[in-house]
Amino acid sequence: MPIHSFADQQTFTLPGIAHQTLAGARHGLKRTEIWLQTLQPGAVTPIHYHDCEEVIIILQGSGTLMMQDKPHAFVAGQTAIAPPKAVHQLINTGQDELRILATLSETPARAFLPDGSPFPLPWA
Amino acid sequence: MPIHSFADQQTFTLPGIAHQTLAGARHGLKRTEIWLQTLQPGAVTPIHYHDCEEVIIILQGSGTLMMQDKPHAFVAGQTAIAPPKAVHQLINTGQDELRILATLSETPARAFLPDGSPFPLPWA
Repeated sequence: MPIHSFADQQTFTLPGIAHQTLAGARHGLKRTEIWLQTLQPGAVTPIHYHDCEEVIIILQGSGTLMMQDKPHAFVAGQTAIAPPKAVHQLINTGQDELRILATLSETPARAFLPDGSPFPLPWA
Repeated sequence: MPIHSFADQQTFTLPGIAHQTLAGARHGLKRTEIWLQTLQPGAVTPIHYHDCEEVIIILQGSGTLMMQDKPHAFVAGQTAIAPPKAVHQLINTGQDELRILATLSETPARAFLPDGSPFPLPWA
């Protein structure tokens, strides 16, 4: 079946963050993985990088993308791009839930800490 | 700059369809292209295929994905996957606007008609 409901995808958590993988290797894909994440106000992702491209679509809320130690503010209706190897972090600096879609160009997508060690994604 | 506003991306049209490329080669990407499309009630895409993977996130509305001549109904909150070479078509069979995000695993993304001839995308 080519159609999948968000509601049928398992939810995983990191502190302040709810995650669902909407599409990826488990759905038969080889080059695309899509994450739906909700960050509570004040929530932060680990500081990390990927070996692949990541595009983040801001669906709701606002926040800051730290990339290579520089802050970039964003709001709903914007797109954030993290190139391969770019160390980055998302922070919900707003008052409301931050809801994003992240597209990664590998699946299963992997994440690494700045020192190069693998970050164990709960949904991997 | 890693942040881009949807509103700053040029809008292109096909009959009943408004298209913006939110991310792609013009934003420095090599393996990811993201389209935001709005289809009016009754609007249809061309019958086409891609050489790459396509994942469609249904943001709003409802419709039908024709894939390899089989209809698959979808609604907002669902994901549709078109593997490489799968001939498909989106139809807004609902009463409201259909709003989708399509992620393609090549950029510039190309589309082909069922006979293999290139379909000239207005935004290419």
